[in-house]
Amino acid sequence: MNFIRIPHRLKSTIKIPSQTNRVEKLYAGLLSDDAILRRVSLSKAITLIETTHPVKRKQAEYLLSKLLKSGISRNLSQNRKSEASKMKTALRIGLTGPPGAGKSTFIEALGTYITEKKGLNVAVLAVDPSSSKTGGSLLGDKTRMEELSRNMKAYIRPSPAGGTLGGVARTTFESCILCEAAGYDVILVETVGVGQSEYKVADLVDMFTLIIPPAGGDELQGIKRGIIEVVDSVIVNKSDGDLIPAARRIQMEYLSALKFMPPNYPNHAWKPPVVRVSSLSGDGIDQSWGMMESFFEKLTSLTDKDTGEGMAILEKKRIKQRELWMWHHVQDRLLEEIKTKDFARRISQKVVDNDATPGTGADEIIRHFLGDKM
Amino acid sequence: MNFIRIPHRLKSTIKIPSQTNRVEKLYAGLLSDDAILRRVSLSKAITLIETTHPVKRKQAEYLLSKLLKSGISRNLSQNRKSEASKMKTALRIGLTGPPGAGKSTFIEALGTYITEKKGLNVAVLAVDPSSSKTGGSLLGDKTRMEELSRNMKAYIRPSPAGGTLGGVARTTFESCILCEAAGYDVILVETVGVGQSEYKVADLVDMFTLIIPPAGGDELQGIKRGIIEVVDSVIVNKSDGDLIPAARRIQMEYLSALKFMPPNYPNHAWKPPVVRVSSLSGDGIDQSWGMMESFFEKLTSLTDKDTGEGMAILEKKRIKQRELWMWHHVQDRLLEEIKTKDFARRISQKVVDNDATPGTGADEIIRHFLGDKM
Repeated sequence: MNFIRIPHRLKSTIKIPSQTNRVEKLYAGLLSDDAILRRVSLSKAITLIETTHPVKRKQAEYLLSKLLKSGISRNLSQNRKSEASKMKTALRIGLTGPPGAGKSTFIEALGTYITEKKGLNVAVLAVDPSSSKTGGSLLGDKTRMEELSRNMKAYIRPSPAGGTLGGVARTTFESCILCEAAGYDVILVETVGVGQSEYKVADLVDMFTLIIPPAGGDELQGIKRGIIEVVDSVIVNKSDGDLIPAARRIQMEYLSALKFMPPNYPNHAWKPPVVRVSSLSGDGIDQSWGMMESFFEKLTSLTDKDTGEGMAILEKKRIKQRELWMWHHVQDRLLEEIKTKDFARRISQKVVDNDATPGTGADEIIRHFLGDKM
Repeated sequence: MNFIRIPHRLKSTIKIPSQTNRVEKLYAGLLSDDAILRRVSLSKAITLIETTHPVKRKQAEYLLSKLLKSGISRNLSQNRKSEASKMKTALRIGLTGPPGAGKSTFIEALGTYITEKKGLNVAVLAVDPSSSKTGGSLLGDKTRMEELSRNMKAYIRPSPAGGTLGGVARTTFESCILCEAAGYDVILVETVGVGQSEYKVADLVDMFTLIIPPAGGDELQGIKRGIIEVVDSVIVNKSDGDLIPAARRIQMEYLSALKFMPPNYPNHAWKPPVVRVSSLSGDGIDQSWGMMESFFEKLTSLTDKDTGEGMAILEKKRIKQRELWMWHHVQDRLLEEIKTKDFARRISQKVVDNDATPGTGADEIIRHFLGDKM
């Protein structure tokens, strides 16, 4: 009697992720015509990609690669499946600002405007780097976006607290893909303007917007100086009543500050505008959205003539962002992994004991882990 | 006839670095009683550790480990070989500040004071993160420290430009060990107060000092806000003539700002003082040095009672710094190495082409490089 032996290296490919059915169901649900099913599937899919369980992580990878293969989020020139949408792919907008700028009320006002007046679907992903330390929650308090959270065309999802990369969950990027799959036209990624997280969010979105209150001096010092160099637009919020003169002043200050910044896009394709908004009365909300639409139109139609590749500027930006994020992840997790290894611990002890310099210790660790792959 | 086979794993240890003689000569030169030989050997040794040539790098590692083994820079409680010195090991002082603060003139004045009035040897290591971009040089223009550079008790060495880690050469740490070996009692590490480099320097020295000019407002905004949280002292330079009132005002401002900072050392062992100095007239230079000496005295005699380990606070700080630097190096160089590998390039292309998400791409890279070492 002969036995057919399965080569060892094939064994892993034979293993089919358990509950593949579940992934197929999620996939079908995300692309379904039923808005409620899409919404439920999106929630489940985000939960799936947020897991650290190895088997579920495999399922998540399978789901994401299936979506990418089917063309979701593939490129900007491809039409969205949703006919109602004028967008070609979701516009990803990052929103940051100091505490007290009224980010949540602005997002509520903007989200309501986009869904009700423009008939578009809006997803809100909130990144909260502070919650792991202070316990404060950005969107846990759902009542802050009471109106929007009852809106069937809007989807609100807080990101898990903590994690690496300045509070931006690795999954925020992947959540964007899921939201696009589920037919959301606009994705608003909210973050608190503290620490390094806002830079990370700038590397994640198409358009990076700073929201500030109409108060100068001390309050504004909470904004990192570098931020102004990477913003695509500034919203001066709370521009109502007595605060209008102050808001005008701030608007002028930011406009002149932005003049001195080097352009963020080739051929001066985009100059960051500064818009005054009252989230309370709704003044300036239409202008804000118009500016966002115009950003998207321009950067998807203009190509980077310098390189002569004929690729839309936004497409190029997204490609760069994907690469950048991959390396952010590698850097973060690789070190985390290595630090847990016995060998690294031994070398670390040598450096602590002054038996090796930090440089030679690092050499030993790198040689050990990359040695045969150099 | 029997053959004795050398086990393969021993082969590498049998290889003796070529020109071992050269290293032995450097070692002997660094520890020699002849001040001129010490100085020449120090220059050669720093050049050796700055090389990237693999064989010379081996020699540098051998020299450093020989010095560490012989007790140089081993611990703070051990007496220095130089009997003239009141220091037990070199005091490493980091000096940062915005351009125009007069860092070089302050270092010249302080260095001259320490060598002439206190009879101590001073080494100046200058880190210049800007030179790779702007071509400007911090100390290349040696005439800026004309007096000090002619002083036989002083040694001035600019760091190589460029490099990673925010312009702080990996070798700055190792240069400190060489300077200690050559009998320098005080090491001044100078950096420009731009970018991230000043934080890195803070992780490299015992005492981190900010030098500022007596000018408020715009000029001061060049200093990163975070800096004030990590300084051990502030020097208000150019406090002479008409500028004295402005310098007094700045002094008060910094003193009150520092009050709100959390303590950097356990048991409130050190409160950062703010000293007004005129590098021109020499006013305040003695006070600056007194403050530095007092910092060293306090932090080498006080132990961290919280941990009950009975270790001097400064010793603990240095241990933490060594570990931190090792991981800085690993993080920086590991990624650099991996990025050059074909496998990483292939995955990177998959992410660019949207065939994989940044997260799953990172997973693949980590699995590939750490796979069998997990």
